[in-house]
Amino acid sequence: MAETVVAKDETRLRLDLGYDGSGFSGWARQPGRRTVQETVEIALGRLLRLDSPAALTVAGRTDAGVHARGQVAHVDVPAANWAAVAATAMRGLAGLLPPDVRVHTVAPAPPGFDARFSALWRRYTYRICDDPAAADPLRRADTLWHRRALDIGPMNQAAQACLGEHDFCAYCRRREGASTVRRLIRLDWARRDGVVVAGVVADAFCHNMVRALVGALLAVGDGRRPVSWPGEVLAAGVRDPAVHVAPPHGLCLEEVGYPADAELARRAEATRRRREAPAGPGRG
Amino acid sequence: MAETVVAKDETRLRLDLGYDGSGFSGWARQPGRRTVQETVEIALGRLLRLDSPAALTVAGRTDAGVHARGQVAHVDVPAANWAAVAATAMRGLAGLLPPDVRVHTVAPAPPGFDARFSALWRRYTYRICDDPAAADPLRRADTLWHRRALDIGPMNQAAQACLGEHDFCAYCRRREGASTVRRLIRLDWARRDGVVVAGVVADAFCHNMVRALVGALLAVGDGRRPVSWPGEVLAAGVRDPAVHVAPPHGLCLEEVGYPADAELARRAEATRRRREAPAGPGRG
Repeated sequence: MAETVVAKDETRLRLDLGYDGSGFSGWARQPGRRTVQETVEIALGRLLRLDSPAALTVAGRTDAGVHARGQVAHVDVPAANWAAVAATAMRGLAGLLPPDVRVHTVAPAPPGFDARFSALWRRYTYRICDDPAAADPLRRADTLWHRRALDIGPMNQAAQACLGEHDFCAYCRRREGASTVRRLIRLDWARRDGVVVAGVVADAFCHNMVRALVGALLAVGDGRRPVSWPGEVLAAGVRDPAVHVAPPHGLCLEEVGYPADAELARRAEATRRRREAPAGPGRG
Repeated sequence: MAETVVAKDETRLRLDLGYDGSGFSGWARQPGRRTVQETVEIALGRLLRLDSPAALTVAGRTDAGVHARGQVAHVDVPAANWAAVAATAMRGLAGLLPPDVRVHTVAPAPPGFDARFSALWRRYTYRICDDPAAADPLRRADTLWHRRALDIGPMNQAAQACLGEHDFCAYCRRREGASTVRRLIRLDWARRDGVVVAGVVADAFCHNMVRALVGALLAVGDGRRPVSWPGEVLAAGVRDPAVHVAPPHGLCLEEVGYPADAELARRAEATRRRREAPAGPGRG
């Protein structure tokens, strides 16, 4: 519970941000690697003239190469430091951040807000171009080029079997002691101008979960596997080496959903109770 | 006329292509520079096993840093060499080209087709983001980030004064002896999700013309100049140093329009008669 309580002389800020994941070793800090977390924390530290580095908590800990348009994070900072820069914070951050990260908004969060634990759902997209006549070099950083034509009818049919609350351990990289039960709310494919886009929503995702699901559905879409296969893999409950995890660069975190302000603290409590012990589920 | 006549043992191919201009010194070959033309000519030479390099003629000779989604070019190649690879040409080119250029289609052109002189019009877009909350790092390669908020009402009003046939020498880099008379068919601005996009269509464009027009309209949109200014600059007929040529990376050649097949040769003839002597207008 400690994290939801903000110290009296501190302000909890909510940040909405986007990044091109190509040049980052993912969100989470790692020694000796360029990460989004460290890049933003350094910029915040400079903006706010902090003595110790800002420590961000994030809604979706994206992997290396995964992008975001609607990432959400929070950070607790001394109230006085925030007050001193609040009016110019957006412009300040734009000048302090490299062009592959943009902070879209930064403002005091409503009481009870926790970027990770208050979230109700995360929405990702996965972009695939299967038509050489539509391959757009300007979108190659966030679009997978697939050599075989995809039929989204069977892909949508197969996705149905994965919706709802399941143990997604067949589609996750396991972490000792962490639950892999998640509720998949939406997984569907649409085609626009030669590009096939998946919309994927879940309460939260395990590590590699979207990319493994996309990999299984790709095999259905280009005819290598029957429509029933992704559901069978899910039901079997063990990682199937035939499921190829799709590359990271087609994946983008688009949006994180939160309840109304009055529900933020209650939601954070409930999520923490359900998922935290003995080890967090990791990916948010 | 010589260019419209294809030798008997040769096939004229039409290529439709797209590229991310970021890594190129423009379309046209230049010694010691990486250009789109040379990159595609080398790939075609390998694909078709040509003794001498393929020589491409292009619809729009884009400048350094300018992108294309709908560029069109033609090339005359030995018919036998084409016949030998026709069935696998698309896949072959995809393997031979770097990821910042894609050939969307390559096929024998209809009789009379000339990528440059048969064209009726060229359509460009220019993308500008003026809202920090909407700045998408994934689109930074093809979107100008503008610090001041833009009002597209006055921009659209000002653009009206530039439509029609005019001598655009005030908006062009002059080339000795080349006409700068062009017919501007469309120039309008629309806002979508925090991004302002210009659609610009003309029979052809002089060097720098779209970017200079965009630069003048930007000054209107953010309030630095009155609505009447871009039209006054046009009417004055001399380059105005107050017009800042907009950066290349917001600009993209989206589409080239051609007449029906039966009209291709006639159109090429007419264009050549009107524009060629004593020196070509250059930019297509």
